[in-house]
Amino acid sequence: MPNVIRQWKLVARPTGLVAPSDLQLSESPFPTIQDGQALARVKYLSIDPTMRVWMADIPQYMPPVALGDVMRSFGLAEIVESRHPDFKKGDKVSGLTGLQDYVLIDGKEPRSFQKLPSIPFLSDTNFLGLLGINGLTAYFGLLEIGKPQSGETLVISAAAGATGSIVGQIGKIHGCRVVGIAGSDEKCQWIKDDLGFDAAINYKHPGWKQQLVAATPNGIDIDFENVGGEIMQAVLDRMNLHGRVVLCGLISGYTREDPAMASFGQVLMKRLRVEGFIILDYASRFMDAGKQLGMWKMMGKLKDRQTIVKGLEKAPEAINMLFEGKNIGKLIVEL
Amino acid sequence: MPNVIRQWKLVARPTGLVAPSDLQLSESPFPTIQDGQALARVKYLSIDPTMRVWMADIPQYMPPVALGDVMRSFGLAEIVESRHPDFKKGDKVSGLTGLQDYVLIDGKEPRSFQKLPSIPFLSDTNFLGLLGINGLTAYFGLLEIGKPQSGETLVISAAAGATGSIVGQIGKIHGCRVVGIAGSDEKCQWIKDDLGFDAAINYKHPGWKQQLVAATPNGIDIDFENVGGEIMQAVLDRMNLHGRVVLCGLISGYTREDPAMASFGQVLMKRLRVEGFIILDYASRFMDAGKQLGMWKMMGKLKDRQTIVKGLEKAPEAINMLFEGKNIGKLIVEL
Repeated sequence: MPNVIRQWKLVARPTGLVAPSDLQLSESPFPTIQDGQALARVKYLSIDPTMRVWMADIPQYMPPVALGDVMRSFGLAEIVESRHPDFKKGDKVSGLTGLQDYVLIDGKEPRSFQKLPSIPFLSDTNFLGLLGINGLTAYFGLLEIGKPQSGETLVISAAAGATGSIVGQIGKIHGCRVVGIAGSDEKCQWIKDDLGFDAAINYKHPGWKQQLVAATPNGIDIDFENVGGEIMQAVLDRMNLHGRVVLCGLISGYTREDPAMASFGQVLMKRLRVEGFIILDYASRFMDAGKQLGMWKMMGKLKDRQTIVKGLEKAPEAINMLFEGKNIGKLIVEL
Repeated sequence: MPNVIRQWKLVARPTGLVAPSDLQLSESPFPTIQDGQALARVKYLSIDPTMRVWMADIPQYMPPVALGDVMRSFGLAEIVESRHPDFKKGDKVSGLTGLQDYVLIDGKEPRSFQKLPSIPFLSDTNFLGLLGINGLTAYFGLLEIGKPQSGETLVISAAAGATGSIVGQIGKIHGCRVVGIAGSDEKCQWIKDDLGFDAAINYKHPGWKQQLVAATPNGIDIDFENVGGEIMQAVLDRMNLHGRVVLCGLISGYTREDPAMASFGQVLMKRLRVEGFIILDYASRFMDAGKQLGMWKMMGKLKDRQTIVKGLEKAPEAINMLFEGKNIGKLIVEL
């Protein structure tokens, strides 16, 4: 065992991208565990856009990370020592590890860690993306709020991201025409050729709005919105009467002083239903959804892809990669 | 009978408020009716914010008024001559009369005119506001989309307008705490003292946002939104988890090149449901709603107020009054 835990602490609130001075790599004394506690070595960190929201002192769905605290994140860890009734040495767990190389698990804490089941065809990191927050977000957001019907047109922004790429595949399983919007030709090629999207649009090409119109000849019934701002506006302008907007993320606004704005005009004129959702609201149904996602994965109906960054020291850069569009699929820091 | 029909025709599309050069008062030869037609003399014109939307060549819920056509409006008229099976001389009817002093009613036309029932306690003009588009909009918007529960807090923008003033009273009937936002002290006094709103906030006062916070100690569960832009944003910022936004109008954006923008951020964080609606979607249930509204009116539970402008030649000015906040309650042009 090392003498210290290395931890990224939030020491300043970012404006824009995360600056080197916002997070500080600190060392804490290595803890001695008490009854009811366990210690786990973090193996993989899940890097998600919501982390940038947690860094900001704005109203949000969880308290922001306090200055001086270890930066919050999801992750996978392996129990190295346990006096906790639920965990034994060698167990693999997922939960809110934070950006650190060891995490102390305390039965009294609300951040619940769950043991990973061992399932053929599934790798550990699948439990961060496909079977973790992203897969569950895609599943509940699309099916509960989007309510896709066969033959409807589904458009997804940030379509080559960890969540968007799964949304599109679930949309195909449900018989939708699926159009993805992404920020590079490589991403577009992946979602179209490998994942089976019907069309993919690179919003960095001039003329992408005309391409969106051409790719949605029957208009748009469901917008699975991850981006906000100009991209959302272009999709809203193409929505059909009584369309549904699954408001999952607004990543274009997370790094700006002024949040991603859009007009509610089309929501009114087209009688759209826009619904914000946070996956934690569906926690009681995670197990059932996980089984379905795992089944689809084993049947080859869901594919995933990961962008792996190595080393805890790279975690702040990895967060910025999300906002610079540098990841394809699930972005993970491997420790 | 006169020799001509006087008609306001749309001859240019306004930018901003309606300019004198946008509408032209024209004369058409007085029509001779054919079998299946009736002719009605227009008595009252309903002046509604949606008219400004109809004047613009933008995607909307009905086709925009074509240049050269009589400007569309709701109104009340009295049959003066009929070869139509449903109407006889002296019948009072409501429907899309347009801004003109006589309207030819043709059985083949889609703009359906309805005979006014004669009900004690109700004046004819009640069928334009309280029992017309505004009452029905308030009724279905609040009850079907807002789904108010006793004890919840309902905030209404443009609260002293024809629709907002009724929404607040229906909210009180359903046991809500009702807070109205309006643009003058006179309007605020009316909705609070006469209509029984729990609080009224004049958004032209500095500090109105703090007053909104103080008036909503338990946050906001339902936003009945008529305005958009900055006012909507302030309300969104106060919404509770899983609140509902009844998107009825965005009047602050109708006279601008750039539509009323707002951030979808709080919709996401608070998991709000925002739903646009247009009253025409509920046409099959108008009769039931009308009965309930009429009952409430007769029981003294719904009060209304009208701002009357006299003379067809004043119709364009009347439209602008809506955007300048010059009406209290229902704005009507009396011919």
